Amino acid sequence: MAGDYIAIDWGTTNRRAWRVAADGTFGEALRDSRGVLALTADDYPAELATLRARLGDLPVIAAGMVGSNRGWREVPYVDAPADLTALAAGALHLPDAGALLLPGVALRGGERADVMRGEEVQVLGALAAGLAPADALFCQPGTHNKWIATTAGQITDVATALTGELFALLRGHGILSAMLDGPVADGAAFRAGVARGAGARDLTVALFEVRARVLLDRLDAVDAASFASGVLIGADVGARSDLKGRPVQLLASGDLATLYAAAIDSCGGTALALDNERAFAAGIHRLWEMTR
Amino acid sequence: MAGDYIAIDWGTTNRRAWRVAADGTFGEALRDSRGVLALTADDYPAELATLRARLGDLPVIAAGMVGSNRGWREVPYVDAPADLTALAAGALHLPDAGALLLPGVALRGGERADVMRGEEVQVLGALAAGLAPADALFCQPGTHNKWIATTAGQITDVATALTGELFALLRGHGILSAMLDGPVADGAAFRAGVARGAGARDLTVALFEVRARVLLDRLDAVDAASFASGVLIGADVGARSDLKGRPVQLLASGDLATLYAAAIDSCGGTALALDNERAFAAGIHRLWEMTR
Repeated sequence: MAGDYIAIDWGTTNRRAWRVAADGTFGEALRDSRGVLALTADDYPAELATLRARLGDLPVIAAGMVGSNRGWREVPYVDAPADLTALAAGALHLPDAGALLLPGVALRGGERADVMRGEEVQVLGALAAGLAPADALFCQPGTHNKWIATTAGQITDVATALTGELFALLRGHGILSAMLDGPVADGAAFRAGVARGAGARDLTVALFEVRARVLLDRLDAVDAASFASGVLIGADVGARSDLKGRPVQLLASGDLATLYAAAIDSCGGTALALDNERAFAAGIHRLWEMTR
Repeated sequence: MAGDYIAIDWGTTNRRAWRVAADGTFGEALRDSRGVLALTADDYPAELATLRARLGDLPVIAAGMVGSNRGWREVPYVDAPADLTALAAGALHLPDAGALLLPGVALRGGERADVMRGEEVQVLGALAAGLAPADALFCQPGTHNKWIATTAGQITDVATALTGELFALLRGHGILSAMLDGPVADGAAFRAGVARGAGARDLTVALFEVRARVLLDRLDAVDAASFASGVLIGADVGARSDLKGRPVQLLASGDLATLYAAAIDSCGGTALALDNERAFAAGIHRLWEMTR
């Protein structure tokens, strides 16, 4: 249909693409693992051709790591505080390719430095669609968990925790790996791990305790992965001193949503489930309209 | 000579063996990477035969992971508080092999659980030889850093931090790996990392900042490994609330000794260099005499 386009959430390891109608209705979708780590910069024109063969020969708007120095073309970060208008203004138009790449957001001021690429579309989309208030705290777990704060509708803070990556590294390699091949589930062992990790200054000591507890029969080997996951997620969530009595907009689904919700509630916050696909759709469609 | 024996410090990845005279004088030595991870339980008789062919057909006393469930024969842990007498009493005699395996030490009481195998010989040896006072705090960095406290000549506390292992995992795999291939040295970047990591509850956020700082030109890529090492060692050292004005007996040599000494001094302690080979020699010879 006239005015249709393709929206892509192009991340580090995964890619999701949708055909979107001019009125913002999301249609046919495609999900695969052709993330930026699987591609070189030269691969993108052919990748777009493949996507267009599936979803229609349409213009493209893409968010995420596709705009990083590991992706197709680097799009400079927009500085926080940032809103959708700033993202739209920072977009990179590639007219020959019929594509538009969105920037990420950087936190440059103050003591800390942090960056995001992709999460900002979900967060600002959630605000625009009224799914979350203009002053909110978002938590978006994954390989890297992002804590994103908004103030008066702008992204004002971000902290990225390597939580998921560290768990994967410990599970795949090293001294704990043989003990971490069990399932991870919310339960007594996970909650005990959260209690150990929350607020801990000695995270690396807490991680070695997984081994010591198993060796000394204080933790069942089958529960070791849940305990270790609890330690890491507990440290991640418990590091925030601003959770008490605060709603946390949890952009996650499945097991990770369950685990983070449990940890957030344990640390005094209130986890509110938010549909990250719906939030992305709301954000990217507004950006599409703003960049016409 | 009559009364000579072979002393072995048999660790996870490395092995050191010495011919020792009856009076405790350490002679010819052998160092290799035939640690327990390179061996199965059935390999040990042949390994001892090889060592004896080099160092003499003598009785053997061995400490370390050789007595773990990943080693030759499991020797149950001795509980803290523990001294040399307790270690000697817990040794496993293998008369057919002409060998004696020493136990490790476990911390079972209280909230935390921790274990060690091998470090206890150095710590108690240092006390026995008068290299450190009877009430002391030891720091023994490596793949796993051990903090060991002694009270009135007994090991009363231990905390193991996965510091070195985490750095190796991050350097070998994952999002930071490409940034961490530079050298690690004490300097401004390392000290900035120590300051960021010391006392931090958000270690996994601090680690992601390595990437963000490089991307945002706040850290030279060549300094990223030193900064990351500083964050991890700073978190390890800074997690201890008991360092202010306190001497720390540092059982390390080379670069790791330099880095930990810098971090200990930054966190208000006073690092004292201790020769870990001399400490091991003093401890194992006393254990040898006590188990005759």
